[in-house]
Amino acid sequence: MIKVGIVGGTGYTGVELLRLLARHPEVKLTAVTSRKEEGMPVAEMYPSLRGWVDIAFSDPAKADLKQCDVVFFATPNGIAMSQAQALLDAGVKVIDLAADYRIKDVSTWEHWYGMQHASPGLIAEAVYGLPEINREQIRQARLIANPGCYPTAVQLGFLPLIEAGIIDTSHLIADCKSGVSGAGRKAEVHALFAEAGDNFKAYGVAGHRHLPEIRQGLARVAGHEVGLTFVPHLTPLIRGIHATLYARLNKPADIQALYEQRYANEQFVDVLPAGSHPETRSVRGANVCRIAVHQPQGGDTVVILSVIDNLVKGAAGQALQNMNILFGLDERAGLDVVPLLP
Amino acid sequence: MIKVGIVGGTGYTGVELLRLLARHPEVKLTAVTSRKEEGMPVAEMYPSLRGWVDIAFSDPAKADLKQCDVVFFATPNGIAMSQAQALLDAGVKVIDLAADYRIKDVSTWEHWYGMQHASPGLIAEAVYGLPEINREQIRQARLIANPGCYPTAVQLGFLPLIEAGIIDTSHLIADCKSGVSGAGRKAEVHALFAEAGDNFKAYGVAGHRHLPEIRQGLARVAGHEVGLTFVPHLTPLIRGIHATLYARLNKPADIQALYEQRYANEQFVDVLPAGSHPETRSVRGANVCRIAVHQPQGGDTVVILSVIDNLVKGAAGQALQNMNILFGLDERAGLDVVPLLP
Amino acid sequence: MIKVGIVGGTGYTGVELLRLLARHPEVKLTAVTSRKEEGMPVAEMYPSLRGWVDIAFSDPAKADLKQCDVVFFATPNGIAMSQAQALLDAGVKVIDLAADYRIKDVSTWEHWYGMQHASPGLIAEAVYGLPEINREQIRQARLIANPGCYPTAVQLGFLPLIEAGIIDTSHLIADCKSGVSGAGRKAEVHALFAEAGDNFKAYGVAGHRHLPEIRQGLARVAGHEVGLTFVPHLTPLIRGIHATLYARLNKPADIQALYEQRYANEQFVDVLPAGSHPETRSVRGANVCRIAVHQPQGGDTVVILSVIDNLVKGAAGQALQNMNILFGLDERAGLDVVPLLP
Amino acid sequence: MIKVGIVGGTGYTGVELLRLLARHPEVKLTAVTSRKEEGMPVAEMYPSLRGWVDIAFSDPAKADLKQCDVVFFATPNGIAMSQAQALLDAGVKVIDLAADYRIKDVSTWEHWYGMQHASPGLIAEAVYGLPEINREQIRQARLIANPGCYPTAVQLGFLPLIEAGIIDTSHLIADCKSGVSGAGRKAEVHALFAEAGDNFKAYGVAGHRHLPEIRQGLARVAGHEVGLTFVPHLTPLIRGIHATLYARLNKPADIQALYEQRYANEQFVDVLPAGSHPETRSVRGANVCRIAVHQPQGGDTVVILSVIDNLVKGAAGQALQNMNILFGLDERAGLDVVPLLP
Repeated sequence: MIKVGIVGGTGYTGVELLRLLARHPEVKLTAVTSRKEEGMPVAEMYPSLRGWVDIAFSDPAKADLKQCDVVFFATPNGIAMSQAQALLDAGVKVIDLAADYRIKDVSTWEHWYGMQHASPGLIAEAVYGLPEINREQIRQARLIANPGCYPTAVQLGFLPLIEAGIIDTSHLIADCKSGVSGAGRKAEVHALFAEAGDNFKAYGVAGHRHLPEIRQGLARVAGHEVGLTFVPHLTPLIRGIHATLYARLNKPADIQALYEQRYANEQFVDVLPAGSHPETRSVRGANVCRIAVHQPQGGDTVVILSVIDNLVKGAAGQALQNMNILFGLDERAGLDVVPLLP
Repeated sequence: MIKVGIVGGTGYTGVELLRLLARHPEVKLTAVTSRKEEGMPVAEMYPSLRGWVDIAFSDPAKADLKQCDVVFFATPNGIAMSQAQALLDAGVKVIDLAADYRIKDVSTWEHWYGMQHASPGLIAEAVYGLPEINREQIRQARLIANPGCYPTAVQLGFLPLIEAGIIDTSHLIADCKSGVSGAGRKAEVHALFAEAGDNFKAYGVAGHRHLPEIRQGLARVAGHEVGLTFVPHLTPLIRGIHATLYARLNKPADIQALYEQRYANEQFVDVLPAGSHPETRSVRGANVCRIAVHQPQGGDTVVILSVIDNLVKGAAGQALQNMNILFGLDERAGLDVVPLLP
Repeated sequence: MIKVGIVGGTGYTGVELLRLLARHPEVKLTAVTSRKEEGMPVAEMYPSLRGWVDIAFSDPAKADLKQCDVVFFATPNGIAMSQAQALLDAGVKVIDLAADYRIKDVSTWEHWYGMQHASPGLIAEAVYGLPEINREQIRQARLIANPGCYPTAVQLGFLPLIEAGIIDTSHLIADCKSGVSGAGRKAEVHALFAEAGDNFKAYGVAGHRHLPEIRQGLARVAGHEVGLTFVPHLTPLIRGIHATLYARLNKPADIQALYEQRYANEQFVDVLPAGSHPETRSVRGANVCRIAVHQPQGGDTVVILSVIDNLVKGAAGQALQNMNILFGLDERAGLDVVPLLP
Repeated sequence: MIKVGIVGGTGYTGVELLRLLARHPEVKLTAVTSRKEEGMPVAEMYPSLRGWVDIAFSDPAKADLKQCDVVFFATPNGIAMSQAQALLDAGVKVIDLAADYRIKDVSTWEHWYGMQHASPGLIAEAVYGLPEINREQIRQARLIANPGCYPTAVQLGFLPLIEAGIIDTSHLIADCKSGVSGAGRKAEVHALFAEAGDNFKAYGVAGHRHLPEIRQGLARVAGHEVGLTFVPHLTPLIRGIHATLYARLNKPADIQALYEQRYANEQFVDVLPAGSHPETRSVRGANVCRIAVHQPQGGDTVVILSVIDNLVKGAAGQALQNMNILFGLDERAGLDVVPLLP
């Protein structure tokens, strides 16, 4: 049994980790920490977990996380970077669901995240946890930087085109729509039901933190810098990201075949039949990215539709997929969830 | 392996049965029929089932349902009653998710459902599939009348009070709120997003089909007729029923203890701590009814809050629970789903 | 022109007052205060008001509210009670949209609102601003306690029955469902989209602040204390209150005629044809309460359905209606809004 | 007083026309037709109009529309084209809210709309009713082709850039998100609450009927054909369109100034401060298009955000604006509605 700890288990990525870990056959949940709710049974904050999770929140300062085999940080940005080293030194593997280790260039990270990095020495060894690209490095890693939600949908969407070298990577467009749970469980006015409900808007158009992360990932695959316009939008649904990606083809290709081949052996990426329109609800609660490719009106603009559940393949599900790889388990362990529809 | 057939698998109770059966360790899905979609892969209509359900819809007239061990009717009212006899004669067990066999008095049924019953001879042997009341009869049955959604939430909510004989059963009130999936996947104006979204209303106040079903069930427990005012409301959520039940106590009692004891051995009924406010989302996708009891301001009015997922404990989940009982399986088989929250 | 000031104009009742006042032919908006946003143009916080409201928020300490003819307090509880006296002394009429002056018994108020009343001497003269009951007192008043949202829907719903003396007032039931804007524009977890969306629950069952207010109002009409079980529920819609009221008739009556007569001359209360099911969206954005009466199955339980927009007839619209009465204007001035549907 | 008739007043554009016309000071509503609801009071189908609209639906075959000064067709595609000529001959002005006269090339129209045009002879004289471009022609017209919803948001969004000749018009991108009321009040499965709620997807990516309409409009302004990729998406909100437009600048420009100048005298187009993120709810119920321009990260991709209410500036509001222009009235008559927020 893998002894698992979760730091900061009170947010949405925390409750999602708990939902998935509760049914993982090889996991023993050892500690779930929260600074403010020490002593409260987890299922008291999350009644959906009654009968599934018995543990109570423990104080991060007192929880013996060094006894764990792996610790997930389901915390805001800037937390894991202060605690990872001690855990790694104790032989504990670390998976950070926040952004602390995602960006290789520390000054880029510090610029976008507005704080000084507490453990820049670990950035180089941290492995970006997108298995469909980095599976082998993940296998060998001690420290996983779990990708952001938008970056997961966008990178999986663009990947085959960039690998095939058939698009102009200087003017990529990612028009993304996310459900409100992506904002987290923080009490903020913009995320109120009466603000976000029956409403739609773009945000962060000038520049969003996920922009450097996506550019870094696409550049790695391309072998050179890419130009990307990334526009996120807040959508009145609870979960789900729908990325509509635009690129200009510079040589003709059978794009449907390209995607089917690239993801033929990826059980968590589902390439739909040509002409499909994937729905965010079709992946609700499950660790899968569904993709459809279009070349409207026979023009040279290719349109890729990529949907994920932001809390699952965009966060907790991907983290669990990475844990399974780290420990040599069936990648599907704990992730055998049929999406909930309607 | 239990060979399962589903008649009318294109509605919401159909897709829910498929979601749950897909992970049931003892089930082999043999046939899913649809008059209109013969030949279409089920996962084409329901992409959420891609990778989980391989089967295609078959024509009801041609599907060899007699080879099944059990057939679920996920059809509208008035269908199972014409097909059950032939299946029973062939040794197939039948579970009807519609109302055809729920009402013992055929003239009452015919009055409320506006059609002539096609197999009244089967009504007496049909067992009402509410396990928390009828488990033993279900075990012995051939034909299960799966309860309606509102009736499930209301009966489970009132049951302990009526069994204990501590309330005035002549003036019960059930104020119920349901998500729109309860209306089914039929194209009807009132169920459109632009009609039901951001809107709330009561309906069927003069009398709703579930009224005689609930009254029948409560009367059985009470040993006499009950007076019930049942007011359903259409709520802008996809799934969920919240029943707020009112009754007048006629003798003092420790109601919390009463409920905890009555449901102590019922894994699918969860009595919350006193003073709780169960949320419909806390049972989303799972086969559980959560209940909380209140006695506001110390008065003699007891208020019971009872929540279920209308498609799960209110339909497909309960049907699967009944199937497990019928075949002597672990009642939880295929129902080990952690509710999806947020 | 009536010079109007608004204290605390940054919440939802504030923006609704602004929306309605912007089109009022006799109003000159003089000041809108906010402690935190001094200097910010109102239309910067509320782009819906661009082109309609030119004013900027002013510091409450510096705004010269004594120059106004009337000041609306769109503040939380506990603010108006500290500022009203000074304004009244300066000849300014005061309309408080919060609860400060609604409860006649100060110890009851202090118990329910958890604070000491700052101006109990004004409580006796404050007039409860429900025009359909108190029009004449409102006309003469200096200080209006604008009713709460639930209390408006519930009192208007029960009023004709209690006035006619045909129900048992010892066991009234008000099962109420409200949209999330009723929680205000405060950043609180329970009001987040990801908490309240696609979810339904009761709250405050043990006792809600609106309980004493409703009981006080119904007792006045009844001439004696009433027994009321009031259960509010949080509903995933932005605006709207639907009150389902239950009472037992103690003498037969033509209830439809009773309601039609009682409200025949009330332009803001619309009694629907018998058997109707009023929808919250049918009053969206408008200052009207729609009511339908039912006597299901011919029993002695009468069911009243009463819907309002919590921000309009439940707050800002009613406040403007009261202002019109105070100043002898057409009661409809500024309230000629056609509800927005769909 | 202008005598107004509405053909097909039972859909959402119909009820919106009624909401706006009800408060228009110069309009007398003479007839509202519906094939199926002859005799039913309009306010019985739309209780929001109780007290505002007294008229009953009349049979289209019997309604004397020739007595009207103007007739609005709030019908599906293919209706106005069969009835317009007779009305025009009788001196009645015609405003079609459907697509019958929007496309100048009849074979293009017939290809996209899948039917033969019944009055191609009128296409040339029909004026495309986008006042911000065509005000003078509208003034002189007899027959107005009211624009589609997406085309309104997209054309107003791109217009200044194309007029200024500063973008590459060969690869424009319009990523559009619409509320579900855009699908109309037709009972169709995809528009059900349980299908569209808490869900997001693209549709019509291969080609949508609004594509030729938008291309025609942009080509007119550009003076040559344009290349456009138009991807619509179905969004879980009732009303609203948010168009995110992408174009590549081919010369530097002060885009903010360009937009402010172009729309300086257009009261129904509101150019927001640089860097804004317009929300669909900020225009809810009102006849206004709000636009914000961005040039993210200083690159050569300009991003335009354009929001409208699909039923108002995208349909009924624009139709009324056109009527006001046709009859030489204040363009704002009947359109003085403050958007409803929250």
